[in-house]
Amino acid sequence: MSKTSIDKALLEERHRLRSRSASLHGHGADHPAQELERVAAHLREHDIRPDVYGAGEYVEAFEQEVADLLGTESARFMPSGCMAQPIALRIWAERAQNFETAFHATSHLELHEEHGYRELHGLNAILLGDPSRPTLACDLEALPDLSSLLVELPAREIGGQLPDWEALVELTARARSRGIRLHLDGARLWEAQSFYERPHAEICALFDSIYVSFYKGIGALAGAMLLGPADFIEEAAVWQRRQGGTLYSALANIVSARTRLAHQIKRMPLYRDRAREVAGLWRRMEGVTVLPDPPQVNMFHLQFSADATALAQARDRVAKDCGIWLFGGLRAKGGTCSTELTIGEAALGIADDRLAAAMAQLQA
Amino acid sequence: MSKTSIDKALLEERHRLRSRSASLHGHGADHPAQELERVAAHLREHDIRPDVYGAGEYVEAFEQEVADLLGTESARFMPSGCMAQPIALRIWAERAQNFETAFHATSHLELHEEHGYRELHGLNAILLGDPSRPTLACDLEALPDLSSLLVELPAREIGGQLPDWEALVELTARARSRGIRLHLDGARLWEAQSFYERPHAEICALFDSIYVSFYKGIGALAGAMLLGPADFIEEAAVWQRRQGGTLYSALANIVSARTRLAHQIKRMPLYRDRAREVAGLWRRMEGVTVLPDPPQVNMFHLQFSADATALAQARDRVAKDCGIWLFGGLRAKGGTCSTELTIGEAALGIADDRLAAAMAQLQA
Repeated sequence: MSKTSIDKALLEERHRLRSRSASLHGHGADHPAQELERVAAHLREHDIRPDVYGAGEYVEAFEQEVADLLGTESARFMPSGCMAQPIALRIWAERAQNFETAFHATSHLELHEEHGYRELHGLNAILLGDPSRPTLACDLEALPDLSSLLVELPAREIGGQLPDWEALVELTARARSRGIRLHLDGARLWEAQSFYERPHAEICALFDSIYVSFYKGIGALAGAMLLGPADFIEEAAVWQRRQGGTLYSALANIVSARTRLAHQIKRMPLYRDRAREVAGLWRRMEGVTVLPDPPQVNMFHLQFSADATALAQARDRVAKDCGIWLFGGLRAKGGTCSTELTIGEAALGIADDRLAAAMAQLQA
Repeated sequence: MSKTSIDKALLEERHRLRSRSASLHGHGADHPAQELERVAAHLREHDIRPDVYGAGEYVEAFEQEVADLLGTESARFMPSGCMAQPIALRIWAERAQNFETAFHATSHLELHEEHGYRELHGLNAILLGDPSRPTLACDLEALPDLSSLLVELPAREIGGQLPDWEALVELTARARSRGIRLHLDGARLWEAQSFYERPHAEICALFDSIYVSFYKGIGALAGAMLLGPADFIEEAAVWQRRQGGTLYSALANIVSARTRLAHQIKRMPLYRDRAREVAGLWRRMEGVTVLPDPPQVNMFHLQFSADATALAQARDRVAKDCGIWLFGGLRAKGGTCSTELTIGEAALGIADDRLAAAMAQLQA
């Protein structure tokens, strides 16, 4: 067999192993048809008319619901955060006639979006502060004038870290005093709320515009929302059209998001508590570091002083022997490696003793 | 009641009337759940794994299928044509280091996309020739250097008109001889093929890049494809990410499109023939003009020498009395008005005598 076929066979074998095991990460894998069937049943039960190019009673009611929850005037359902966030920064830039923005060096916009903010929107971004900790007020010192500052709560790439409430208030007040518009990257706002234990609207009141996601913690098919003042959202809808994001219909994604949101929000504290328990089990392991420790939300990183290839093989063996899939992709760095764990429904169903046994097996 | 509530009540009444009647336009209205149920059943029956951020066996096999059908090297599923087409023009512009493009004055990019090609991609478009006829080779005379030329087949806003084959070959050859890249707006390529009666690949061979749509004639949930050389499509995938169009998953849209395409393509000649029959009935009516006459594809415009408000009321009355919804939105122009009719499954099920009686009733 060629190298490619061996790689493919290995991937297939891993896919089979993972789907037969209880995953520690995420919400567990339903059959791909399941969410569509749930949405279809909901459509049969209620008299819901499809949205047409972003307009329609159902989607507009959903937008108002989320706007009310987050305390903003208006909201717009969009296909993705990758679409929503550069649009927000572009609008603030146009208004200020200033295309300078700033965010954390590990922001999704910098790492995972092919620099659409720059290539499509002509924005220039200053990457702020020490990449290993959240953005703080001191990071704004000695910066040129900015039209906007994007803050991700929690910062995913550094294990879901959050500034404490006082630091967040100080950061946003400092920016505001300089006339900088604040945009919240709330891809995991639902998770951040379980850390601050303040109403969503109190967190969001620190920001001028907000993006939230519905497929990550919420577990919907796909989709995002951009929120802010009514005139801002009107402009955003025009940019959404320009970017090709105003679809003929997005009904399945909209129904999936709306029907899951209320239920999933309530589960976030459970996920956070379980994340702390699971992290506690990892902490006891030799050669494993939990980051941050303790986790602040329902996610954290694990750093292993082990070779990535060997560790992946050990994980596969544990899945075969114990029926638990301990983690997914490993990022290698020298002779060590790391992974990201997000705790959701799946981990709630795995007992601690079974989990500890699987972890022990990893180093056997 | 306020003016707004009266308008809303009228819209509601019209929605009820239309959904109770046999529509002459389109494919007929299924329950919004139906296509999702069909997709879910297909997922249960076959072992299909969801795409993840645009990658996956199923979507890639679909892309290859359409690339093979259209005779291109490569293809990429995208959320919408509004996303796909400016990306194509941008790539050709970057390669030529020339941001001048050209298209028909009624192009979708000019009329319905909030000028994303300009505002996002910095392209400048020259609007070509006489807006009441398709683009012809003579329209290229005396133009500055262009990186690309976009040709919509058929031109929707002028009733689905097409240049004849010789004129199309002349246009594309003229452009090619000047080093201009040719992009096909094939939102209705499936329909155009039934006019040219040549293989899809023979039509597409005249172009460097092609966009096709899956929700219009094909009747899928939503979605589009961009096609061209492999290196072009690789670049397009990067731009798709930048525009926020690489979704966590688009499985429902992909399965809907792939499973409907093969079946629907075969129906296009039926729709075209039926369109000619239906147009023949309209032609006999006093004060009604069919454009183009005869229709070239399965769509045409109707121009009425009648007031739009009065005609809409007459249409509602016909729906009530005869159970046929003759047309939808009317565009008023002075004391006259016009509408667009696209013939699909729905019109195949309406007998000529019933239809003629309904039309007669319209002027009663």
